[in-house]
Amino acid sequence: MDLDFKKSDGLVTAVIQHFETKRVLMVGYMNEESFRLTIEKGYAVFFSRSRQKLWLKGESSGHKLIVKAIETDCDQDAVLIFVDPVGPGVCHEGYESCFFRSLSDDKWQISEKQTYDPKVVYDK
Amino acid sequence: MDLDFKKSDGLVTAVIQHFETKRVLMVGYMNEESFRLTIEKGYAVFFSRSRQKLWLKGESSGHKLIVKAIETDCDQDAVLIFVDPVGPGVCHEGYESCFFRSLSDDKWQISEKQTYDPKVVYDK
Repeated sequence: MDLDFKKSDGLVTAVIQHFETKRVLMVGYMNEESFRLTIEKGYAVFFSRSRQKLWLKGESSGHKLIVKAIETDCDQDAVLIFVDPVGPGVCHEGYESCFFRSLSDDKWQISEKQTYDPKVVYDK
Repeated sequence: MDLDFKKSDGLVTAVIQHFETKRVLMVGYMNEESFRLTIEKGYAVFFSRSRQKLWLKGESSGHKLIVKAIETDCDQDAVLIFVDPVGPGVCHEGYESCFFRSLSDDKWQISEKQTYDPKVVYDK
């Protein structure tokens, strides 16, 4: 299960894709420990670059990402994780996917509706 | 078109997804110049972290990635680019996608066949 954690300060890029719809839901980063925990626990565990610590996705929101399959790329510095997401959305801003803005007329435009109210989920 | 290039040494992560099949084909990185060039030229231009220079994908192989749509994520430090790939494969190792290895029995296993011979394309 060797991955190249050296190229990017101990991290690999983790692309999270819905295992059925194939929608890309988010991009996160994993260090060796979070990658190992992801496999052990069966749901995605990231390393937060801003907080510099392990981030058990869904711990507070309940929106875990159940792992269905894992792939790696040719130089093994990125992983593609197919998930079955628990709950109405992956993004902490209330959307199904973190990628809810599209480039249109040289501007980022919100291209879809929220699937839940993040205040209800995160400020409880 | 503001993106957060500060979080990762001047780069954003760029996930490349086939606009029709939704397959994730590769992950690359873009600095501000390569992102601007991607929009101007209409095909993906990356910044190579290993070579520390602009990388016009397809320049030698002909396997350009024609941009169909661009999305960004909630914190705007990653882009998702939907492409129409020119040629039989995106990966320089001869596969349709750089993600040609799956985790199976705790090992990375090649899960598909090459779509072209990289020696023919790159050593001409």
